Amino acid sequence: MSILVVGSVAFDTIKSQHGVAEKIIGGAATYFSLAASYFTDVRIVAVVGDDFTSVHENVLKSHHIDTSGLMRAPGKSFHWGGEYGENLNEAKTLFTHLNVFENFDPKVPPQYKNTEFLFLANIDPVLQAKVRRQLNGVRLVGGDTMNFWINGKRDDLMETLKLVDVLLINDTEAKMLARDSSLPRAADKVLTFGPKALVIKHGEYGATVFFRDGAFGLGHHPFRAPALPIAEVIDPTGAGDSFAGGFMGYIASQGEVTREVLKRAMFYGGVMGSFAVERFGPERLQSLQRDEIDERFRVFRELTHLS
Amino acid sequence: MSILVVGSVAFDTIKSQHGVAEKIIGGAATYFSLAASYFTDVRIVAVVGDDFTSVHENVLKSHHIDTSGLMRAPGKSFHWGGEYGENLNEAKTLFTHLNVFENFDPKVPPQYKNTEFLFLANIDPVLQAKVRRQLNGVRLVGGDTMNFWINGKRDDLMETLKLVDVLLINDTEAKMLARDSSLPRAADKVLTFGPKALVIKHGEYGATVFFRDGAFGLGHHPFRAPALPIAEVIDPTGAGDSFAGGFMGYIASQGEVTREVLKRAMFYGGVMGSFAVERFGPERLQSLQRDEIDERFRVFRELTHLS
Repeated sequence: MSILVVGSVAFDTIKSQHGVAEKIIGGAATYFSLAASYFTDVRIVAVVGDDFTSVHENVLKSHHIDTSGLMRAPGKSFHWGGEYGENLNEAKTLFTHLNVFENFDPKVPPQYKNTEFLFLANIDPVLQAKVRRQLNGVRLVGGDTMNFWINGKRDDLMETLKLVDVLLINDTEAKMLARDSSLPRAADKVLTFGPKALVIKHGEYGATVFFRDGAFGLGHHPFRAPALPIAEVIDPTGAGDSFAGGFMGYIASQGEVTREVLKRAMFYGGVMGSFAVERFGPERLQSLQRDEIDERFRVFRELTHLS
Repeated sequence: MSILVVGSVAFDTIKSQHGVAEKIIGGAATYFSLAASYFTDVRIVAVVGDDFTSVHENVLKSHHIDTSGLMRAPGKSFHWGGEYGENLNEAKTLFTHLNVFENFDPKVPPQYKNTEFLFLANIDPVLQAKVRRQLNGVRLVGGDTMNFWINGKRDDLMETLKLVDVLLINDTEAKMLARDSSLPRAADKVLTFGPKALVIKHGEYGATVFFRDGAFGLGHHPFRAPALPIAEVIDPTGAGDSFAGGFMGYIASQGEVTREVLKRAMFYGGVMGSFAVERFGPERLQSLQRDEIDERFRVFRELTHLS
């Protein structure tokens, strides 16, 4: 089944101890859709400027990503610049040129209306809700957000959360959203805001999914998927979006959305996140083979499997 | 089989948002031996002062911990005072009165010489080595250390590490010891210092064991055990020592030391650490039933188990 993602398609300029990458293709929707493309058909709703050429669009198209929802506006594409120091978990933003993204008004093309799986990448919660409301037949909605919206547009975000089935955020965001410093307690609180499942990403320590009691199956026990210990992280940009792409892509590829499917999806999310950080930008995600993904899934499973 | 632990038996005064506990029994060897006592016979080598009464000693004895190696010296027992703020991962030390511990010269009683499993809790690496050399027939040596020794007695510590089979430390200590900011790379380096296996404890994110290639079995894949998400951590004091007690205690209870035994031991370590933090001091470790331990082991396993 196909999945639709709405979010940013952008350019990134990234500096780290491993080098510099100038104006390479990036954005949450790019990482998400490349990662998801290994599992299912992907459709994208985003806006780009004049500087986004057919060469750039072909990065997506060559992965059979449907770009008919990629709107073009006069001006330049969203361009973000960031630098990573010793601590690869946190980027220092050098510049944020929103450009055409500033007036992004996402529209779902008519041929996308039958979409069954939807991912609302990290954009203004008002726009997330607007997209969600354009899709009536959707079976599962995943969503992301960040501190900027949690603090700056809390009321709007709370409305959007009522429309999201699975929220994917990190530890800091979960605690901030719940206003609680205990992670499990924060998770319980967030699950009263709307989502039936909450995926909290712990960076190099993996991710935990918390379920609302009875959602997607019996019980309420959380489930934790590990992250692969990676000796040399080259560029952590897009790791979270790649996790979401693997997670949602795998779910969309399955016939039913059960708790067991969500658990396996946690592993595929971790797998895609671990590939993303091995090269600058989405480079590694562009050149994967499906058997490499399955092999790493096996390694991840071994990492926590007791016989 | 029995396990011998050498380390501190002390008093702790602990402040946290959940209250204050004045001069309660503590120390690494106390937490370790209580946790290990649920799995195997435990022997202890430590020093206490006049203020350590038979009431205190009975906390250990009532768990069938052999205290014939508990030396008594004139003066007061080691007494540590600490305070936990919002961040429960780090204690602010209020005072450290070494007292009789300052001149601790550990001696292994003759009846302990046949000990097959040994744990060198966090004390001066010179003393750790001295104890290790008093035990010739030992099958497996576990050890702990901390930043104080890594920075202050590095050369002595490096000598001691040659005598340790399994080292248990946390993320920060591993990076400091290896002088490398990448955890997997730090792990590889530490494994060249002597230990055949390295357990890195990640606090609320669980723990990972890294193996020297071929040690305890084939391959070199690491293994990660989760930590239980605990809503209300009352007192994190002793969590690491309780992990070590569950880990080493389970290993000593098994006939052979295989990689599969070490993996299961990682889960038992996490289980005992999770119990330790539920009450002030070692209170929870004093009142456990074996079936509670097995039930939590099952929950831990569920937490990462894909069917």
